[in-house]
Amino acid sequence: MPSVFTQIVEGKLPAYRVAETEEYLAFLDIRPLTRGHTLAIPKKEVDYLLDLEEPLYVGLWLFAREVARAIQAAIPCERVAFAVVGLEVPHAHIHLIPIRSMADLNFQNPRLQLSPEEFQATAAAIQAKLREFHPQKASS
Amino acid sequence: MPSVFTQIVEGKLPAYRVAETEEYLAFLDIRPLTRGHTLAIPKKEVDYLLDLEEPLYVGLWLFAREVARAIQAAIPCERVAFAVVGLEVPHAHIHLIPIRSMADLNFQNPRLQLSPEEFQATAAAIQAKLREFHPQKASS
Repeated sequence: MPSVFTQIVEGKLPAYRVAETEEYLAFLDIRPLTRGHTLAIPKKEVDYLLDLEEPLYVGLWLFAREVARAIQAAIPCERVAFAVVGLEVPHAHIHLIPIRSMADLNFQNPRLQLSPEEFQATAAAIQAKLREFHPQKASS
Repeated sequence: MPSVFTQIVEGKLPAYRVAETEEYLAFLDIRPLTRGHTLAIPKKEVDYLLDLEEPLYVGLWLFAREVARAIQAAIPCERVAFAVVGLEVPHAHIHLIPIRSMADLNFQNPRLQLSPEEFQATAAAIQAKLREFHPQKASS
């Protein structure tokens, strides 16, 4: 059974996509800690980040950085935090979380309830910055 | 005023070092969330991870991976989580935190109180795995 994320990559499950390349995809976390909380994944299904082959691992962190810069520009925040936990969906992923304080980076916090329109507007705002910074990588 | 981490790099402040290269240093967090909680930093003092120049950014994630693999082998845990928060010491750093559950990755949790002997034993255990995997990078 493919992971939930592979099903998103393949278009079998919906997602609010913000950036895509041949090897990587970024989309909004559907249970966000803060508005703009995004997941960056390799399309290849590998469970543990430490097990990614080196070029794919390096490329994922570079992709995540480009998406993080767009989030930083699009969403009012102090910093974009990076987190890899590895105990949720068994498909390596980096959480990119716009934060205003240490307290925002707590996976036990209640999750935001956003409407589809709010998710779409958030994805569009990040995409707009990505298009500005990296025209080839924004999801259309 | 150099950052606390620069003072550690320069040997002006003590630390339980676990790994070192020309450009990077890893040492135990003195206020650990779990035993084995380690910080990986570039020796160059740059505040925000997103501002590191690309080769230094990529190298830091590769260095962090080697240290994380050693932590995973040395410390009983499910996964080694990665976190970059960016609101503490203004010198970019990656938290490497051996976790057993999502609840372990919460910067508001009370910190462990370890004795110097416990810190030394933890650093030595991680160093031993690093020496096994990457003989040139373990701190002596």
